[in-house]
Amino acid sequence: MEEVWHTRVVTDVAPPRRRGRPRDADLEDRVFDAVLEVYSETSWRGFTLDAVGRRARVGRAALYRRWASKDDLLVQALEARSPLPVPIDTGDLRSDLVELARQLLQGYRTTPGLVSLRVALDARVNPELLARLTHTLNKSRLLAARTIVHRAVERGDLPPDTSATLLLELVTGAVLSHALFALTTPEPAEDDAYAELVVETTVRGLRPAP
Amino acid sequence: MEEVWHTRVVTDVAPPRRRGRPRDADLEDRVFDAVLEVYSETSWRGFTLDAVGRRARVGRAALYRRWASKDDLLVQALEARSPLPVPIDTGDLRSDLVELARQLLQGYRTTPGLVSLRVALDARVNPELLARLTHTLNKSRLLAARTIVHRAVERGDLPPDTSATLLLELVTGAVLSHALFALTTPEPAEDDAYAELVVETTVRGLRPAP
Repeated sequence: MEEVWHTRVVTDVAPPRRRGRPRDADLEDRVFDAVLEVYSETSWRGFTLDAVGRRARVGRAALYRRWASKDDLLVQALEARSPLPVPIDTGDLRSDLVELARQLLQGYRTTPGLVSLRVALDARVNPELLARLTHTLNKSRLLAARTIVHRAVERGDLPPDTSATLLLELVTGAVLSHALFALTTPEPAEDDAYAELVVETTVRGLRPAP
Repeated sequence: MEEVWHTRVVTDVAPPRRRGRPRDADLEDRVFDAVLEVYSETSWRGFTLDAVGRRARVGRAALYRRWASKDDLLVQALEARSPLPVPIDTGDLRSDLVELARQLLQGYRTTPGLVSLRVALDARVNPELLARLTHTLNKSRLLAARTIVHRAVERGDLPPDTSATLLLELVTGAVLSHALFALTTPEPAEDDAYAELVVETTVRGLRPAP
């Protein structure tokens, strides 16, 4: 395994479709893939620049030249691989929330989604290291939920005092439990039906009894 | 660190209150504590009998004599440290669910609760190893929810076709998100208020519109 620690970047092992791309973008791709793989198999403690370098076949010096710390590397890999959700604005509360639930559920079925969950768990053990990172990862989700609730309140579809946090925790939480504890991976159509059921129940719950 | 690998059990480092307990119970206590600590800091991959032995100051031979595999050790430690929830039967649907939500929320704030979540995450990466274990860990929770729903349906408090799984995923999911993504640990009274809010919303959502 010594060889992979050469500082020379082994560009000739890259898949053919990447030919002609800038050398750095190719390095970055391999490194970000390796970050997610290593983190999804281990945790904050097992996630080291050395382990990433071995997996990505990138030299230690090249890694350290580019990323100052494992925090930086993790944040950048997650940002690159979990693009921000497309802003949701269908004009209808239920459709907005179903789309949010579907995006979250699909997200939790991917490696970046599992890594985000691992980071949140690791933050419970190492709050001083990871609390800021977890906060950053959650902010866009909370912002999406707030925007949806705000518009629904303006349209009169939800009471003015609706808690966006409660709504988000019910919807996120249900799809998270569903993705985490189910033994099988369902068909996409089943995920869609589940997203609708969760949203229907939550919206009915958030409206005051007539 | 070599010394701790002696097969002799170092009983004289045990806290005084354990004096007089059988040697084996004392060994088990230290090992189970170490299992939860090591697993909560690492993951399935980092959780090795060697790491547990070092943390518990128990010799490798003593560990292997008693536990055949790391599966066995993990299951036994989780069963010993996360006692089954006390059966909940207050006579009222909302009170039953609030008690369930409180138990789950408090559970997720403890090391055994975090370890159970880690096991569920690790099962997504290593299904062949951990799916059975995750299933076992969830069974008692699902059984508790089913019993509560069944009684509520008999009393006429919920429609007969209420899904216990959906109810459990909404309640568990919300408290799980709440415990996992919040930056601060709230006072117990705040947790109780949150449990009530989640249950109120979920029960209203599960009842058909009049």
